[in-house]
Amino acid sequence: MHKNLEEKTFKTEYFYSGRIVKVRVDDVILPDGAKGKREIVEHPGAVAVVPVNDKKEVIFVKQFRKAAEKVLLEIPAGILEPGESPEECAQRELKEEIGYRGQSLIKLASFYTSPGFSSERLHLFLAQGLVKDSLKQPDDEFLNIEVIHLKEVIDNIGNNMLEDGKTITGIVMACRLLKV
Amino acid sequence: MHKNLEEKTFKTEYFYSGRIVKVRVDDVILPDGAKGKREIVEHPGAVAVVPVNDKKEVIFVKQFRKAAEKVLLEIPAGILEPGESPEECAQRELKEEIGYRGQSLIKLASFYTSPGFSSERLHLFLAQGLVKDSLKQPDDEFLNIEVIHLKEVIDNIGNNMLEDGKTITGIVMACRLLKV
Repeated sequence: MHKNLEEKTFKTEYFYSGRIVKVRVDDVILPDGAKGKREIVEHPGAVAVVPVNDKKEVIFVKQFRKAAEKVLLEIPAGILEPGESPEECAQRELKEEIGYRGQSLIKLASFYTSPGFSSERLHLFLAQGLVKDSLKQPDDEFLNIEVIHLKEVIDNIGNNMLEDGKTITGIVMACRLLKV
Repeated sequence: MHKNLEEKTFKTEYFYSGRIVKVRVDDVILPDGAKGKREIVEHPGAVAVVPVNDKKEVIFVKQFRKAAEKVLLEIPAGILEPGESPEECAQRELKEEIGYRGQSLIKLASFYTSPGFSSERLHLFLAQGLVKDSLKQPDDEFLNIEVIHLKEVIDNIGNNMLEDGKTITGIVMACRLLKV
């Protein structure tokens, strides 16, 4: 049992600064007094939304993910813009990616997607009372929309229908809340 | 509706190569023929395990996460070693982090933790039939063990008790499977 788990940084070096992420290495003092290094990917944070219509169908987006080298079935999501609240970001992504807004937005969870190396914190919502809005996909996003019933999704959750972490979390939490 | 969502890479440049992650930028041809750039963090992949004992308690680890600058309550997890199967990695992490092995190991899901920029794929298991083994924590890991009933965890899932994505996913999926 360790009393104090904290690791104090005594040196920071940046190795990459890109459009979305930055990469730094922190030299730290470990809890036992020894020195160590931690690689950190800095990320601005993100929002994801499970949009469920009145028939309990989920409106998904399908998009190619270069990091996975494949097309993934995901819930609408995007990176937080400076000064934007998670709720504003959720509504913006619904509009941009599927052309809806949600009259009801329930926070499901907020979490680090991979805290071993990444600072990305994701805010996860359930959107209901969906109202059609004009679709406005950004120029560099190519998405197809797919509508699938919650029951069909949860029944296939072990079959690789979903391979995206936030989408799996959102679907399982939505099913628990909506008793599907 | 786009027929083909794939993005073909025509140039790759590496910017960082560390102990765990590598960072590259791919120049790609987008589905409409335009050119674009994708930042990718390459990661070797990981395994996480929800260890549930006969009293339906979960054995968690608490550890300081530099990327989050705080102590997080997490399920045992770790990076896949070269040549290691996800199941072998799951048993190794149980032994290293909490001093147990699981007589039963059920695959809950496999997913990308943040496919917008990271190639990390995580394999998530439920471990039951826990048997005490010798604890063997690596030199650079400082963990405290905490045992909490599944019911208490799921009842507090909206209260920031859990702030780690894989842990939330694992707990909600385990509760669904075990009818908690």
